[in-house]
Amino acid sequence: MDESRKQIERAHALVEARARRVQDFPEPGVEFLDLTPVLADAEAFGAVIDALGLGWADIDLVAGLDARGFLLGAAVARELGLGVLAIRKAGKLPPPVHSRTYSLEYGEATLEIPAEGVDLRGRRILIVDDVLATGGTVGASIELLEECGAEIVGVSVVLEVPGLGGRDKLSSTTVRSLSES
Amino acid sequence: MDESRKQIERAHALVEARARRVQDFPEPGVEFLDLTPVLADAEAFGAVIDALGLGWADIDLVAGLDARGFLLGAAVARELGLGVLAIRKAGKLPPPVHSRTYSLEYGEATLEIPAEGVDLRGRRILIVDDVLATGGTVGASIELLEECGAEIVGVSVVLEVPGLGGRDKLSSTTVRSLSES
Repeated sequence: MDESRKQIERAHALVEARARRVQDFPEPGVEFLDLTPVLADAEAFGAVIDALGLGWADIDLVAGLDARGFLLGAAVARELGLGVLAIRKAGKLPPPVHSRTYSLEYGEATLEIPAEGVDLRGRRILIVDDVLATGGTVGASIELLEECGAEIVGVSVVLEVPGLGGRDKLSSTTVRSLSES
Repeated sequence: MDESRKQIERAHALVEARARRVQDFPEPGVEFLDLTPVLADAEAFGAVIDALGLGWADIDLVAGLDARGFLLGAAVARELGLGVLAIRKAGKLPPPVHSRTYSLEYGEATLEIPAEGVDLRGRRILIVDDVLATGGTVGASIELLEECGAEIVGVSVVLEVPGLGGRDKLSSTTVRSLSES
């Protein structure tokens, strides 16, 4: 087993040991995985951040998704000596913005980034988030960034929820999770 | 001028150079300072993160405030080899939680952290956020963490909005901003 694989397995084990799993939140039948205790633990946080940034070639910017992805994306960016692009929920940024609206199970949501002050043309971006479920938010982020001229190198997440189609939806992008065996 | 002071002044100059200042957002008469371009710039982001973490003694945990403080707090924590505690807006975390409700100009808001999985007794915490304005959110965070047994070593912010009373409200805590001359 190579060194990267060992680091990823160690990070995953620390996530499993420290995460808080709560049933029926935010609605009945759903299990919520709270990573707050993982991130607050120096050893686990360091291992997760290192593992999320492993093995990606020629990235020059990390994108983090509002809000939990900010915690991971910013730390990965700092670890790699890069900047972090905050992809925001609608209404948080002053105009002008680039935006992308996408469908949720009920209704829709919009993601935004500034249309001034950040030039994404030709930038090679790694998207970081906590959990990949349906892939709706990550998919919309990819479309938003590509519309602005960026190239998406890949998507790095802590955990995947199987059976919700996230990886199929993102099949044209390299997706890695710490829970892959 | 000592080395820390030079680093802080350099970080502040990069913030001033890269930040997007937008008038009349989110409401008429208010100037919004969008740090997104600062954080997306590797040089400016690195300088800001280093400067926010300078000169604090014996911290063992960094707290970041939902959502922009997550970007800064997580990177400062990683830089210092510590964990990051995400202080969340109400409704984002599954039960059980510790919470603190405080008054805003219109209405009120609530901050939450998990009541399981993170033991804050005796922890020495640095709170990190982007902008100190009235100090309402930071003040409530201090109270929430102290109720959980933590000691607040200080508060580190990128910028202060003068004239809104933030520093007076937090007079019992050491507050540093990169804009202090």
